[in-house]
Amino acid sequence: MKILPDSLDRITQQFSRFPGIGKKTAQRMAFQLLEWNREDVQLLGEVIIGSNDKLKHCSVCNLITEADPCPVCLDTRRDASILCVVEDSKDVLALEETSRFNGKYHILGGVLSPLEGIGPDQLHIKSLMARLDAIDEIIVAMNPSVEGETTSLYLAKLLQDRQIKITRLARGIPTGGDLEYIDGVTLGRALDDRHELK
Amino acid sequence: MKILPDSLDRITQQFSRFPGIGKKTAQRMAFQLLEWNREDVQLLGEVIIGSNDKLKHCSVCNLITEADPCPVCLDTRRDASILCVVEDSKDVLALEETSRFNGKYHILGGVLSPLEGIGPDQLHIKSLMARLDAIDEIIVAMNPSVEGETTSLYLAKLLQDRQIKITRLARGIPTGGDLEYIDGVTLGRALDDRHELK
Repeated sequence: MKILPDSLDRITQQFSRFPGIGKKTAQRMAFQLLEWNREDVQLLGEVIIGSNDKLKHCSVCNLITEADPCPVCLDTRRDASILCVVEDSKDVLALEETSRFNGKYHILGGVLSPLEGIGPDQLHIKSLMARLDAIDEIIVAMNPSVEGETTSLYLAKLLQDRQIKITRLARGIPTGGDLEYIDGVTLGRALDDRHELK
Repeated sequence: MKILPDSLDRITQQFSRFPGIGKKTAQRMAFQLLEWNREDVQLLGEVIIGSNDKLKHCSVCNLITEADPCPVCLDTRRDASILCVVEDSKDVLALEETSRFNGKYHILGGVLSPLEGIGPDQLHIKSLMARLDAIDEIIVAMNPSVEGETTSLYLAKLLQDRQIKITRLARGIPTGGDLEYIDGVTLGRALDDRHELK
């Protein structure tokens, strides 16, 4: 027999569409929602629906933004000669939090993945090629996955004839990691790239 | 400098109000939402807002429901002489999934917690007392927490003068558990309550 109301199921089902939100978590969220007061529930719903109209991608760098071009592209204090190429907008946030980069970004919108039918035409590579004037360095900051690696190599090849320095993020053991638990590939790479203690 | 749009922050903030959803998860959900198509985003928002109007608590047992009284209270095939008292509607779902209980429920809406200012008047205890006619047994199925324990003892005391059998869920080692990792209280309890192998 069905004990709980359909609308609870519908909320649970909607929440579990988010990757990383399993059925139990979605259900807990749905129950939680019922404890909220009417105004808060209304606000959540409106903020979600409102995102439809407000958010778009920057026509220059493809970053998620409300204004086009985005604040990064408009910021003249940033070094326009260095471009950091990333997979998606989340990566920009992570890099900004380090406060170590003051150049501009270009968001590819994904990685090459022939199995999922994602080739160069599905990524924002054309718009990247259109931005190369006055660029001295491109940092290819893909995620350390097989697809990220493939995409890095593809970009490196594509850009090799231009007078542009192509760099990538250093690989090695993460801060706070424990040698015992670090995978062999990472540890091997860290050994290969070891440098002198100064 | 602020890189990401305010409306993204607003969504993140709303999602992180759910307990168990941290800032990172909320952010990942917000980014994910931007990949959804307009119709899906609209649907999620509407389902959430709609919950305001559709869902209420059953006036008899306090279960979350769309119709009042709830389907459990209306179901004449269920044994009305056994009442299972639980903290919230989620617990009903968990108990129903066992298929071992065919009585009725009463949802307290929480547990006694003097520190958080939750006394008997904040729980649905009065409506429980009003349901005791023709009840033979009350299963007090609180969560195995200090507050759950306190609430169980409070109810037992409150009901002691009635001609009603008061029972509680068995305590012991959970199925699939590993003795090595089970906490001492649970294991001690399982030892105390050991019974003959038949």
